[in-house]
Amino acid sequence: MRVTAYAAPAAGQPLAPTVIERRDVGPNDVLIQIEYAGICHSDIHTVKGDWGPQPFPVVPGHEIVGTVTEIGADVTRHAVGDRVGVGCMVNSCGECTNCRNGDEQYCQKGMVGTYAATDRDGTTTQGGYSTHVVVDADYVLSVPDGIDAPAAAPLLCAGITTYAPLRRWGAGPGKRVAVVGLGGLGHMAVKLAHAMGADVTVLSQSLKKQEDGLRLGADDYFATSDPATFEQLAGRFDLIINTVSARIDLDSYLGLLAVDGTLVNVGAPPEPLSVNVFSLIGARRSFAGSMIGGIALTQEMLDFCAEHHLGAEVEIIAADQVNEAYERVLASDVRYRFVIDTSTLV
Amino acid sequence: MRVTAYAAPAAGQPLAPTVIERRDVGPNDVLIQIEYAGICHSDIHTVKGDWGPQPFPVVPGHEIVGTVTEIGADVTRHAVGDRVGVGCMVNSCGECTNCRNGDEQYCQKGMVGTYAATDRDGTTTQGGYSTHVVVDADYVLSVPDGIDAPAAAPLLCAGITTYAPLRRWGAGPGKRVAVVGLGGLGHMAVKLAHAMGADVTVLSQSLKKQEDGLRLGADDYFATSDPATFEQLAGRFDLIINTVSARIDLDSYLGLLAVDGTLVNVGAPPEPLSVNVFSLIGARRSFAGSMIGGIALTQEMLDFCAEHHLGAEVEIIAADQVNEAYERVLASDVRYRFVIDTSTLV
Repeated sequence: MRVTAYAAPAAGQPLAPTVIERRDVGPNDVLIQIEYAGICHSDIHTVKGDWGPQPFPVVPGHEIVGTVTEIGADVTRHAVGDRVGVGCMVNSCGECTNCRNGDEQYCQKGMVGTYAATDRDGTTTQGGYSTHVVVDADYVLSVPDGIDAPAAAPLLCAGITTYAPLRRWGAGPGKRVAVVGLGGLGHMAVKLAHAMGADVTVLSQSLKKQEDGLRLGADDYFATSDPATFEQLAGRFDLIINTVSARIDLDSYLGLLAVDGTLVNVGAPPEPLSVNVFSLIGARRSFAGSMIGGIALTQEMLDFCAEHHLGAEVEIIAADQVNEAYERVLASDVRYRFVIDTSTLV
Repeated sequence: MRVTAYAAPAAGQPLAPTVIERRDVGPNDVLIQIEYAGICHSDIHTVKGDWGPQPFPVVPGHEIVGTVTEIGADVTRHAVGDRVGVGCMVNSCGECTNCRNGDEQYCQKGMVGTYAATDRDGTTTQGGYSTHVVVDADYVLSVPDGIDAPAAAPLLCAGITTYAPLRRWGAGPGKRVAVVGLGGLGHMAVKLAHAMGADVTVLSQSLKKQEDGLRLGADDYFATSDPATFEQLAGRFDLIINTVSARIDLDSYLGLLAVDGTLVNVGAPPEPLSVNVFSLIGARRSFAGSMIGGIALTQEMLDFCAEHHLGAEVEIIAADQVNEAYERVLASDVRYRFVIDTSTLV
């Protein structure tokens, strides 16, 4: 099946329309007609070559929402006409300890990314900036009716990336959660932590987005450019979700944690960070990392969002605006996620 | 009350006999006739001036075991004749959140160290290399009969320092625990983790102490000087207790953790460590720190040790061997803790 897509032809080149091949629908596959595809910062890193050589042409996109138009003979969990989603992975071994524990993203043989990865059949995966995609049904999520389709797309990456650590480290009533950075990931972290019942503080470079932050569910908002913030909030938080991938002064942020508090990085800066171990020992603190989430947890997150009427804040664009959108993401000029209306691809 | 002690007269000077003043026994105080005092590496750091200026002369020693010889009018938890212990702290505010949660070591006003600290009455504390000490009864532990007095002394620091993170991070049946370094702290971590039912592996620079390690309760023993160790054990452990205060290649050790695993530093190297955040994100791992433990947990540890017939492996010395013992600690030539028989002070 040949389908229209938007692809990066080579590292650092602008994306352009193209036609790609999708595999035949196998017994456990689902064919999805894509409606919306979010633009994640990872897409940009990948096509710019920041993360090493890629199998160009690359069709990015791992925040996919669409409708099932065909299913394989063995598929029972999805039906034609269902609204579904696909996130950052489309396969894994299914047999290792991590897969069996529902942590397919940590598959010991390596999860298969939604694009620019080698699938288990040897083909190269291509992502969601496209009209259709064929995905193993076990890696396809049900998108409940309670969420608008475009607002649901970013949940498949930005949503689960922040939901997973909030759940793992017990965000809820009586817990003080700080979110560092109010971008695509950060704005979801605020909404989710607030819906879980936690007391939520945004720590942003400036107060520029304060009004937004409070509207999204934050109880407090502080500027990290003001050194007084770090004195005033010392020892305050049970959990800090750091959505900023740039290098930060980790010790200052660790100082904001209470005893037994955890700072979780959901982005990874390319350079190593420096940690003064006294920052941890002084209050039995932890510095942790988390990457997306397993399939079952992703479904739980979508159901949670539907129940709480949550979705991402999005700006819908046409496919031919992708390159411009990339520039705006790099300039932090988006509130809070671009989503491509893939009907503009046809 | 004037009592005999061994003190460092100035930074880097050898310790020598002296006489110090102990305060009168107040209503909530206990007078303890000291029997044994362990030598902790911290003692050496402090008197050498590694940790900054100190209120010399300093009498070190925060691994104290002795017998109650007098109690204040309000004391109910200890009686004359009881065998008791004193660890790294002798006071705290008792009122802050951390104190109220039983984490007196993280007192928000600062815990009062057993020596070289300013007590709440303004006096300078002096430690256990002495014949007697007066301590607030709330910071005095009961030492159960099941443990030999000299073997009990190091439990007050080395024991609780390793017991606390083992408990906090769930060491027990089905858990794979690695202990980095087989010294004073490490040998207690091995004994305790084994008694808790965990599968225990020692990671030591060489295989020199392998026989000891296995005898103390380790199931496996690997040399970290062999790069194959890091390949062979990749992703294996749920918990790593790092007792080494020197700088280590943290990313290599984090690679040994399974999904959701935690590496806990119980020592703090003076220089910051470098962490590649991918080491954490790649398996939802944590890097944490822990410092001794609260009074209630220390009592729990002593009771646990009595129940499991555990104590430290000690070499008993006379007070006039302290300086020589310090040299041997610095040369890692002790299996596994020196304990001063304080009757040699009289």
